[in-house]
Amino acid sequence: MNRKTYDTIIAVASGRKEADLCIRHAKILDVFNKEWFDGDLLVSEGYIAGTVESGRGKARAYEEAGGRYLVPGFIDSHVHIESSHLSPTEFSNLVTPCGTTTVIADPHEIANVCGVNGIKYMLSSSEHAALSVMLMIPSCVPATSFEHSGANLDAKAIAPLLGKPRVLGLGEMMNYVGVINGQKAVLDKVWEARSRGLIVDGHAPAIAGGDMSAYVASGVRTSHESETPKELRERIRLGLYVMLRQGSACRNLNGLLGGVDGNNWRHCLFCTDDRQPKSILSEGHINNNVRMAVAGGLDPVTAICIATINAAECYRLDDRGAIAPGRRADFLLLNDLKEFNPQRVFILGRQVAENGYLQVRSEAIEPKNVTGMMHVKDFSAERLALHLRKNHVRVIDVIPGGVVTASGEATVKVEKGLWVHDPAADILKIAVIERHHATGNIGLGLIRGYGLRHGAVAISIAHDSHNLIVVGDNDQDMALAVQDLVRLGGGVALAKDGEILGDLALPVAGLMTDQPAREVAGELAKLHQIAFCTLKVNKDVDPLMTLCFMALPVIPALKITDMGLFDVNAFKRVPLEL
Amino acid sequence: MNRKTYDTIIAVASGRKEADLCIRHAKILDVFNKEWFDGDLLVSEGYIAGTVESGRGKARAYEEAGGRYLVPGFIDSHVHIESSHLSPTEFSNLVTPCGTTTVIADPHEIANVCGVNGIKYMLSSSEHAALSVMLMIPSCVPATSFEHSGANLDAKAIAPLLGKPRVLGLGEMMNYVGVINGQKAVLDKVWEARSRGLIVDGHAPAIAGGDMSAYVASGVRTSHESETPKELRERIRLGLYVMLRQGSACRNLNGLLGGVDGNNWRHCLFCTDDRQPKSILSEGHINNNVRMAVAGGLDPVTAICIATINAAECYRLDDRGAIAPGRRADFLLLNDLKEFNPQRVFILGRQVAENGYLQVRSEAIEPKNVTGMMHVKDFSAERLALHLRKNHVRVIDVIPGGVVTASGEATVKVEKGLWVHDPAADILKIAVIERHHATGNIGLGLIRGYGLRHGAVAISIAHDSHNLIVVGDNDQDMALAVQDLVRLGGGVALAKDGEILGDLALPVAGLMTDQPAREVAGELAKLHQIAFCTLKVNKDVDPLMTLCFMALPVIPALKITDMGLFDVNAFKRVPLEL
Repeated sequence: MNRKTYDTIIAVASGRKEADLCIRHAKILDVFNKEWFDGDLLVSEGYIAGTVESGRGKARAYEEAGGRYLVPGFIDSHVHIESSHLSPTEFSNLVTPCGTTTVIADPHEIANVCGVNGIKYMLSSSEHAALSVMLMIPSCVPATSFEHSGANLDAKAIAPLLGKPRVLGLGEMMNYVGVINGQKAVLDKVWEARSRGLIVDGHAPAIAGGDMSAYVASGVRTSHESETPKELRERIRLGLYVMLRQGSACRNLNGLLGGVDGNNWRHCLFCTDDRQPKSILSEGHINNNVRMAVAGGLDPVTAICIATINAAECYRLDDRGAIAPGRRADFLLLNDLKEFNPQRVFILGRQVAENGYLQVRSEAIEPKNVTGMMHVKDFSAERLALHLRKNHVRVIDVIPGGVVTASGEATVKVEKGLWVHDPAADILKIAVIERHHATGNIGLGLIRGYGLRHGAVAISIAHDSHNLIVVGDNDQDMALAVQDLVRLGGGVALAKDGEILGDLALPVAGLMTDQPAREVAGELAKLHQIAFCTLKVNKDVDPLMTLCFMALPVIPALKITDMGLFDVNAFKRVPLEL
Repeated sequence: MNRKTYDTIIAVASGRKEADLCIRHAKILDVFNKEWFDGDLLVSEGYIAGTVESGRGKARAYEEAGGRYLVPGFIDSHVHIESSHLSPTEFSNLVTPCGTTTVIADPHEIANVCGVNGIKYMLSSSEHAALSVMLMIPSCVPATSFEHSGANLDAKAIAPLLGKPRVLGLGEMMNYVGVINGQKAVLDKVWEARSRGLIVDGHAPAIAGGDMSAYVASGVRTSHESETPKELRERIRLGLYVMLRQGSACRNLNGLLGGVDGNNWRHCLFCTDDRQPKSILSEGHINNNVRMAVAGGLDPVTAICIATINAAECYRLDDRGAIAPGRRADFLLLNDLKEFNPQRVFILGRQVAENGYLQVRSEAIEPKNVTGMMHVKDFSAERLALHLRKNHVRVIDVIPGGVVTASGEATVKVEKGLWVHDPAADILKIAVIERHHATGNIGLGLIRGYGLRHGAVAISIAHDSHNLIVVGDNDQDMALAVQDLVRLGGGVALAKDGEILGDLALPVAGLMTDQPAREVAGELAKLHQIAFCTLKVNKDVDPLMTLCFMALPVIPALKITDMGLFDVNAFKRVPLEL
């Protein structure tokens, strides 16, 4: 808010100037007393000037609420926008009709590809979006030292970013082991954010007791990795804000809801973390969390408060989260307190969506320094040849429905010192091709349970370093798919018998596109169909998402990076041959 | 907290280092879930490392809680330390045994006398006190332009002070009329604090509707001037934190309690605002608010949460307000949940009081640039002569039990053009003598209902400019009392028949002393006795406090400043003669 707007809002509130807009006859939520009241809402220069008795508001323009519920816009407390495959503007176009008006975004994925440039792109590309995008600076780039990512952000690199507008603090500190063990380089980053009075997001699956105390003592403020009501309550006891996450893959909301009560709701938040365009289009965004919470027995006012004022308080966003004077005029009109599909969505006093349809499209800006991120060296089908001296080897066993794998063993077919595909065995070749520094690194391994019969699937989204990952039964199709990715500047490619059957370009860092959500979701659905019907991928696994997590060396048990096979439990590289 | 301490606490929490102190077998309050749990508390370098199962804590030293309640230290959300007549260190010695471990202090009084030097003194003198003193920078110095105060703090003067350590924001914005009317110089100050993301305290008696919306839109966050449950709820609806104040004069707690419920308690705070040493010694400090709230029907846990975590959240003091890892080890052991007289008080892990007795005395520092603030020019008994051309005059009518006066009229005795005291009339002379800039200004008036028969009472505390104020039946005793104040460097003086009957020196700005609270309270009791028994002051009025508010030109109806009589309702100076 600038000073002119500030002066104007005060003048309008006090009656010295006329309001721009009056929303008449609304049932307004008072999130502080947790009660409804009938009133008219006065808006000036995009901010709330106040509420007056129903029907008494005066303004230059009027909108009729017709007795509908008027509530603050919803806030997603933790999201990786990149997981939607959409640029921030297209993400805005997708989620604002759902009633999400603010997100706290952690650009961890693009930072792993483009470093500081990626974070700057997320800031600049979201600057003029309808959605208010606040940023947390990624704390763990790279995630581990057992792979090559595009950047390395230490405390010194992070410091200037923490001072930028719309930056609220440090993103999820995934290296909780480093925090607990007091690793200086890790604590340097937390200390930097903390010393500036900024927020530090947490990420601590399954830790408790003294370890959790140490993690909280470091200054972490939130947790989105809780699984049970007991864990939720224990973490709230430590002062953490606990997020009830409902992503595409990780769906914790129902499992946590039993722990929320009339006392501790104050420290609960909603988030999506990672949510696919398909899920958002079919189920919604934060309104889905609210709907599920209410369906699960939470009273609607508490659910709305969790989605609004709680997030605002946690992240010190005093300018939103409530229908109160001086705050942003980000609000929704709701037909009911069950479905939470907003009849209308207003952001900064402007109606951006009605009945699920976008009315004000946020236009993409030209991406700078974040395209063409395909620095692949010396790649050819020959580089995929898998030399084996023994035929008893480690294989990555896919566990359907999750991101965890098992570390398996198998006896495979070896001809002339090279692995060959055995159609009877459901074992495929998997390769990770370094794409940031043109090192020419290729990690090779074997994967079981993916089910593909013939062909290859390649993708440039491979958490967290986002090298290229490809799986297939033959090197030619695998190479073709990879070469297609390089040509596209990143994305997804499916190949069979020397032909590209389908692909999707994700030119922004190889992670995102400026295409609209519906088109992206449609393309992805087509690619899924090809994967299942033509390539015969196992129907129990997601053909793309599964691959995205095969290179993540912090999730058990056996993973593969551009530097080779990695045993997560032992936390070290291991050879393919046993 | 410095980095070494930070690293140590994490190490202790994780079990890599031993704790300094373990409080064993406590019933610990979890303010976030609002429930009790049995445990041991681990303290390291003055901070909480965590809690462990009861009896399982390991440390270099142990203290036995014996099953007592362990709760966070209490926070006074708004206090003028000067009103205790004690320096910050002596104030600390007085309130810490009551369980107050943090105060948010607004040094409005000393700022009116000493300006920036006064604020710096409050910061430096409190720096090493056991009590944690956080400061709000006074927003209204001087309170009005109809009097001479010692300083004038505009936005430019305030800006550098807002950046100092322990400064949380801008003190109570009393000029709500200026805010509502959009006066630039007033809004400049609020904008300055707001732009830095700092807190702005409010002060808005009896305003509502659009005016209140304008006031809140300016960025004000708190209110301690609420009177009814309805007002409390209306203000909470606007997003304000509402303070349940229990001072010596203003006692709003019981009147507001009916508005607090299971939903809005989150936006309630406790404060004392102005509290005399006598009240603190006899009733307590914030523990008195907690006790009264519980006696009034609030559940003890909610009352304690209001006194602790709510204040911490409102003022963004993330390092306190809860028993949780990484926070200050400021906590109390309580025998019961009724009296709230702490059995022991710990601040930064050190026991500072036991059973009401101070164990760690905070030693005063030499006051700098805040003593000898008696710049009185050309004063003598002759200057008190009250020349009248008419005998029908305005008189200030004292209304017992409050700070409001009535604007009265009277026909008085005039001899040789001078007012003379009429023993039958209960009308006395009152004078305000400018003491900041040696202007030689003296405002003269008449006061009815104070009841003094013979002699004079003078005091250097006269809100908000704190010029000297004196009342009496004869100029010689009045002059003697004033001259005694000048000699003392400020304070209170009672004179009769050419003799000082009693006095109390308040050498710090003429407002405070480094003497201990019990001595000050004893001296004040003696002075009260002299005022009542020897000078025959009306028993219905407080002989000192009443005078303190006679020069406050923002409280109706007729007041007197060094510039003469002031009609508060008309907001202008008026002549004595009608």
